[in-house]
Amino acid sequence: MTQKRIYFGRFISTPRPDELLIRTGAVLVDRRDGRGVIEKVNWSVNGPNDAVSKLGVEAPVITTKETGFFFPGFIDTHIHAPQYPNVGIFGKSTLLDWLTTYTFPLESSLGNPKSPMYHDSSSPPDPLARAKAVYNRVISKTLSHGTTTASYYATIHVETTNLLAELAFKIGQRAYIGRVCMDRPETCPDYYRDESTEQTIANTKASIEFCKDLDPTGERLAHIITPRFAPSCLPETLSQLGTLAKKDDLRIQTHISENLNEIKLVKEMYPEHESYAGVYDHHGLLTPRTILAHAVHLSKEEMALVKARNAKISHCPASNSALGSGFCPVRELLDVGIDVGLGTDVSGGYSPSILDAVRNACIVSRHVGYLAGGNSRCNLSVADGLWLATMGGAKVVGMEGRLGGFEEGMLWDVQEIVLGDVDEFGDVNETGVDIFGWEDWENRVAKWVWNGDDRNVRRVWVGGRLVHERK
Amino acid sequence: MTQKRIYFGRFISTPRPDELLIRTGAVLVDRRDGRGVIEKVNWSVNGPNDAVSKLGVEAPVITTKETGFFFPGFIDTHIHAPQYPNVGIFGKSTLLDWLTTYTFPLESSLGNPKSPMYHDSSSPPDPLARAKAVYNRVISKTLSHGTTTASYYATIHVETTNLLAELAFKIGQRAYIGRVCMDRPETCPDYYRDESTEQTIANTKASIEFCKDLDPTGERLAHIITPRFAPSCLPETLSQLGTLAKKDDLRIQTHISENLNEIKLVKEMYPEHESYAGVYDHHGLLTPRTILAHAVHLSKEEMALVKARNAKISHCPASNSALGSGFCPVRELLDVGIDVGLGTDVSGGYSPSILDAVRNACIVSRHVGYLAGGNSRCNLSVADGLWLATMGGAKVVGMEGRLGGFEEGMLWDVQEIVLGDVDEFGDVNETGVDIFGWEDWENRVAKWVWNGDDRNVRRVWVGGRLVHERK
Repeated sequence: MTQKRIYFGRFISTPRPDELLIRTGAVLVDRRDGRGVIEKVNWSVNGPNDAVSKLGVEAPVITTKETGFFFPGFIDTHIHAPQYPNVGIFGKSTLLDWLTTYTFPLESSLGNPKSPMYHDSSSPPDPLARAKAVYNRVISKTLSHGTTTASYYATIHVETTNLLAELAFKIGQRAYIGRVCMDRPETCPDYYRDESTEQTIANTKASIEFCKDLDPTGERLAHIITPRFAPSCLPETLSQLGTLAKKDDLRIQTHISENLNEIKLVKEMYPEHESYAGVYDHHGLLTPRTILAHAVHLSKEEMALVKARNAKISHCPASNSALGSGFCPVRELLDVGIDVGLGTDVSGGYSPSILDAVRNACIVSRHVGYLAGGNSRCNLSVADGLWLATMGGAKVVGMEGRLGGFEEGMLWDVQEIVLGDVDEFGDVNETGVDIFGWEDWENRVAKWVWNGDDRNVRRVWVGGRLVHERK
Repeated sequence: MTQKRIYFGRFISTPRPDELLIRTGAVLVDRRDGRGVIEKVNWSVNGPNDAVSKLGVEAPVITTKETGFFFPGFIDTHIHAPQYPNVGIFGKSTLLDWLTTYTFPLESSLGNPKSPMYHDSSSPPDPLARAKAVYNRVISKTLSHGTTTASYYATIHVETTNLLAELAFKIGQRAYIGRVCMDRPETCPDYYRDESTEQTIANTKASIEFCKDLDPTGERLAHIITPRFAPSCLPETLSQLGTLAKKDDLRIQTHISENLNEIKLVKEMYPEHESYAGVYDHHGLLTPRTILAHAVHLSKEEMALVKARNAKISHCPASNSALGSGFCPVRELLDVGIDVGLGTDVSGGYSPSILDAVRNACIVSRHVGYLAGGNSRCNLSVADGLWLATMGGAKVVGMEGRLGGFEEGMLWDVQEIVLGDVDEFGDVNETGVDIFGWEDWENRVAKWVWNGDDRNVRRVWVGGRLVHERK
């Protein structure tokens, strides 16, 4: 019985795009099997005691503050854990020079003592210690911003990748962990590359096994097959990764059509294929379990192909803006019927916060609308953005119906949000969000989206377990 | 002697665009006449004691943390104080419907008990109490984000405008206070409009006098003539405001070319003038003391005219993105030789933070570059953005040489920044910025710009007076 909890207060969620559902009530969560499933909900209770009596269970009651609400945990569908120390460091680079200037040196330093990042360093290289500090940090940081599920890229190193899996599992974030596959000499530096298709596959299998040992159910943690992107892999590697994913029914993640020069490069490297999406399709990598990051410049034919394969898209607006990649037409992707979620794309994206991704998604959609001659249909509303961050993300990571809402049978992956109340003298508890008192709840949510940060995230649960609490 | 202070530690500033100047040293500030002028600087001292001996003055020494630095206070060249409660509340609106839906009701509620904002309210209207809470809040909020100087729009109400002046002066933010002039019946609602040119001018004069009484020097506080924008004023009003500004050598602020429909409206309302900038020029409002907010869509001819008159531009990137107004070509404006600063444009802009404006200026410049076919010259660097926020802003508000740097003779309007150091376990004092230790100071500043917030602002001084300290 002590493994049950009742949550009482205000619950806000986005069951459909552009729909903000605001309810007061109580939710009963069962943590007995470690899954944290919502067993019962009741939207007509008046208080904690009433909740206990109406749900018919004697369990501890956890209530939100009057100024706060429960909201589904955010799902980051695309984040590079080892790049976290580089957030904000990208100068004026664009994708391809950004990779060689900033990214490969940092990623390699988490597994390779000969990484160029150690050249100027006075202390002896200790890649695994660095990885530990970085991964501990990125997991607690994203949790503190309300990210309950993350689809991570690690590095090419098995040990480092497994460390990320271990830490995420221990700290309690729901995670998909990808060992990065890159073995094509023309595009990958000598200091940061798998040596051959055989090595790529063997190393990937080692990390798959490690993740399976940690969580045999695969619900809280699983490996995700991760060819970095078409240009960085040998064609044979792409094929074998496709086969491996099929055999074990694994998720796949990669990048697509982020940048115009990248698309040109793919055309040059894969002249036999009709399109970038076609390359992945040919190698068995375009599946309902595939997360394609970016997809800024897909042709109509590629969109149709992605839709036909039921592959998913991770929209990473902050990254696309920071690296000058272009404007992703999210409304068009949704209209085609493609599932879209949000990604921070740390550190192409400069922020570890999915709330920031919601903001940037809203902003970029207004740019798309402006460029389409003032077409406001392109605009994403606050509720659209929050839907992408929760329900959309759940579809993208293949957890539809289990994550993103407060319905019976769903998992308790939830963040508790608090806002700041301004008093008559203009004083307030410091957060980014100031509520004057006359705003309705729809507008309070808008204020949270546009000025909120980790200070508004009071508590975070994953699978019913409290994994973050703000001191 | 106790009116002198020595500041010791790391000083970072941007003397020229794209140049980050990082120095260690000491600065002596004289507060005797209440101005807080930098009397002496020394960039070759080794510690607090050495600072005292090399500067030759026995004065208290204030030092930065090892993980921090002094940085010039930010200058917000365009912010609507009464709109602060609406940050984040704009839905899918664009400029003209945003004004009538969100903005006029809120602004009027700070002076008019019959404002539509009170229609649904159960408590009796108390406009001045509301104004007091809002203005206290916006001043302390912007100070907490490092804004030491702000050019404010208030409302049309004299009493409310004067209250803003009084509070800014008392709390200690350097401020230009504009009573908003709007008296054209076609575009201004009955509940929020000056009745005639005579009333507009009389009310403006009342507020000018009030500000002069508060600060006869005009250095810490001054009135700024504020015709809302060309469509909201009678032509006769524009002319008389131009005359008034000239007579008293006052600053002027208004809006220009923010939105395509607005530009069309100006063309319809002022068919006799060649351009939007031409309207202001004709009425004597395009002067070296004029701040033009937005300027997203200026023609080449208008840019040349603005340059010829030496009028200034306040770039408000967050607002332009949020309201889908377009992409301001900042590099082009700078290349023409126009002085540009940054504005939050609260609440068209959703954030009270100029650091956020720096980020958005960098992002929008990348959009401009992308749309110009990948022209990286358009890109603003982090140092460019910080320059706009400090030195650029100083030019825009007519305080060049007095604000924006650490040279002798300048005023001590300064923010002390602290960053978070990640330890070997990945733990850190919570701010938005995580420093792992291997980053050089240029990259640390980049990390601050991209992920910093008010938590990184430890102390803020205006004219040598400590006006904000983070608990």
